[in-house]
Amino acid sequence: MTNSFEAAFAKAKALDAQDPLASKRDLFHLPDGLIYLDGNSLGALPHSMPARMQKAVQQEWGEGLIRSWNDAGWYEATGRVGLQIAKIIGAKANEVIACDSTSINLFKVMSAAAQALPERKIIICEEGNFPTDGYIGEGAAALFGKEIMLANQDNIEEKIAQAGAQLCFVSLTQVHYKTGRMLDMARVTQLAHAQGARMIWDLAHSAGALVVKLSECKVDYAVGCGYKYLNGGPGAPAFVYVREDLQSDLQQPLQGWFGHATPFTFDQSYAPATGMAKLLVGTTSVLSMIALEEALKIYEGVSMRAIRSKSEALTQLFIELYDAYIAPLGFGIVTPRDAALRGSQVSFTHSEGYAITQALIAKGVIGDFRAPNILRFGFAPLYVSFADVVRSVEILREVVESGAWQKPEFQQRKAVT
Amino acid sequence: MTNSFEAAFAKAKALDAQDPLASKRDLFHLPDGLIYLDGNSLGALPHSMPARMQKAVQQEWGEGLIRSWNDAGWYEATGRVGLQIAKIIGAKANEVIACDSTSINLFKVMSAAAQALPERKIIICEEGNFPTDGYIGEGAAALFGKEIMLANQDNIEEKIAQAGAQLCFVSLTQVHYKTGRMLDMARVTQLAHAQGARMIWDLAHSAGALVVKLSECKVDYAVGCGYKYLNGGPGAPAFVYVREDLQSDLQQPLQGWFGHATPFTFDQSYAPATGMAKLLVGTTSVLSMIALEEALKIYEGVSMRAIRSKSEALTQLFIELYDAYIAPLGFGIVTPRDAALRGSQVSFTHSEGYAITQALIAKGVIGDFRAPNILRFGFAPLYVSFADVVRSVEILREVVESGAWQKPEFQQRKAVT
Repeated sequence: MTNSFEAAFAKAKALDAQDPLASKRDLFHLPDGLIYLDGNSLGALPHSMPARMQKAVQQEWGEGLIRSWNDAGWYEATGRVGLQIAKIIGAKANEVIACDSTSINLFKVMSAAAQALPERKIIICEEGNFPTDGYIGEGAAALFGKEIMLANQDNIEEKIAQAGAQLCFVSLTQVHYKTGRMLDMARVTQLAHAQGARMIWDLAHSAGALVVKLSECKVDYAVGCGYKYLNGGPGAPAFVYVREDLQSDLQQPLQGWFGHATPFTFDQSYAPATGMAKLLVGTTSVLSMIALEEALKIYEGVSMRAIRSKSEALTQLFIELYDAYIAPLGFGIVTPRDAALRGSQVSFTHSEGYAITQALIAKGVIGDFRAPNILRFGFAPLYVSFADVVRSVEILREVVESGAWQKPEFQQRKAVT
Repeated sequence: MTNSFEAAFAKAKALDAQDPLASKRDLFHLPDGLIYLDGNSLGALPHSMPARMQKAVQQEWGEGLIRSWNDAGWYEATGRVGLQIAKIIGAKANEVIACDSTSINLFKVMSAAAQALPERKIIICEEGNFPTDGYIGEGAAALFGKEIMLANQDNIEEKIAQAGAQLCFVSLTQVHYKTGRMLDMARVTQLAHAQGARMIWDLAHSAGALVVKLSECKVDYAVGCGYKYLNGGPGAPAFVYVREDLQSDLQQPLQGWFGHATPFTFDQSYAPATGMAKLLVGTTSVLSMIALEEALKIYEGVSMRAIRSKSEALTQLFIELYDAYIAPLGFGIVTPRDAALRGSQVSFTHSEGYAITQALIAKGVIGDFRAPNILRFGFAPLYVSFADVVRSVEILREVVESGAWQKPEFQQRKAVT
């Protein structure tokens, strides 16, 4: 083993040359000298975005003013964006709408599931899941008189069996935000259904990076966010999916005027819209919604299988280089080595993970840290190259070997880690 | 009475010359040839906005990427904007936060009030209020086992007395969205408190146009929107106020990770933040929040009394001209003639209100229509001039006298009316 990365760069060059998605990288603004491995936290800026936002601000808002609700199509934006996302996550055209945040959308579908099966008292939430999922679950459980059973990716099958006929719904994230480990959506959904329960999937780390098949897996409800692999910008609107046949009976307590059957008749009493519109609440953040819509154009005509293949190859190369150059430096790896079991990220452990992440960022490789000891690297297949993978490992090795991370400036915690 | 508006224009010219807020108009983009009387539905574009949004998109998102949560202050934006709004609505610095939509914020405070007084079974919602308030009230009532008593602006005092010790909370909008009639915040709040109940005010048509005194009136909870008089852009984030002493015990079921005491320790169980942060749920729409923050700079150093005085004068002139030129044409007026009883809008009735509004828009005067028969004109004191008032009445008269509104194109209803 040498310190030389020559062979690795040669391999990466060959892989980049064959990459059918290579040209997509040119659609993004990637700052000079930066390797961005955090597209699973905030997607990169599409080149077309500044002009689109200027149009939205100057022309649609500035000139069109209130008329733009009709003339610029603001009113239908939630549905249009929902349709764009439906294609990316294997849902039908009428099964997805974009609105609010992932947390709020989770509340809606958890409430819907809880109310649909009132006699069933157990809901399964995921131990160690991204926290908002559990927090919203606690809130919904308290409201609807349910008891939370915690399960994790290892014991989920057993827990579903244990809950049995008392099981109301199961709420899981398909790809774990820390480990990157991916659950089998078809199998877990089927197990929940076998108990007569509903299945909720959080696609935060799936949408735009995996081949997701909501319809084929007969998933009941799903939510996900627009600012990670979908590149919709900071705090982009989220989305929510409800299987077609569950929509007509769906009840959710956030009954706002945009979810009314006829919002502009200003009726005294709530009468829900048919279809996904009943998941809407208040006025959508139009500027943020327009940004998401613009970003999603990049997915038009792109094969999700091609994205997934590249994702697997990027993470595979990263793991190979980890074994050769990083493992000997005191790191562990928590992401499955079997590509079929992981999402589009690779996570290491290190007791000094926070400081190492900060030092790495200072050297131009952006990943992120997740308490207590996870260094997380996301590989957005639309704009990360194989050469990026090699260079990031080379820099990580330099940072660790040089002890650069020991500087006090890298130890101090920031507000957002 | 003649058709000539010469005297009125002379009066308007004098009023504009004396207007201490006249220079604020220059801070907005107002399209050529347009008179914009719909700032109570969507505020006009501040001139500084395009550059601010370009910076947010290109520099903060494009270059800063995930680092901007710390480096560009995205993380604290909800609190910073809350502070800006607190100054405008007479609240303390730690009593307001910006987030989500008005509807969702109403759900939070209705839930908080319902849970704070579980034994009290009646909630008062407003008959004929903007519909989302009532719809959210229905949802909250069903969740928390409350009964809705409808009251209106005429019988509210009597209804509060009738509900008595069973009264949990009263939810009212200070300025009625159709009529523009304003309630006495101090008096109604006191009446609710006298029954031991909580008071919720919707400030949708108040914030930025009136002297609102939440602290002085000891209001319990308030919500409002950022896209009307506050000029935050289409679907701008909303805000929520909770009186300081009610914050520590506050419980609301939308328990998202941004409302956690320590979001970045990724704890398994929810532990609410202290203060207003516990009203946060998911990740905020950063681009929309930045737009609102930029727009609110215009209010810095502006006296809300000066804004209110101009608002009263603008609406007074509009009503005088209505009496002279519009009333004879078959219109009615539903806005109080006493300036102390109205907000910053004037509403007429006419059986052909929809078509007349459309014809008026085609002639460059933008107001809006509210079913079934209301023509609504809002006067944003920061950018509407007295000359605008006269010219709008002149054009309205022309539209009606010429019969221009009878064209079929003006009869056809649009998606958003």
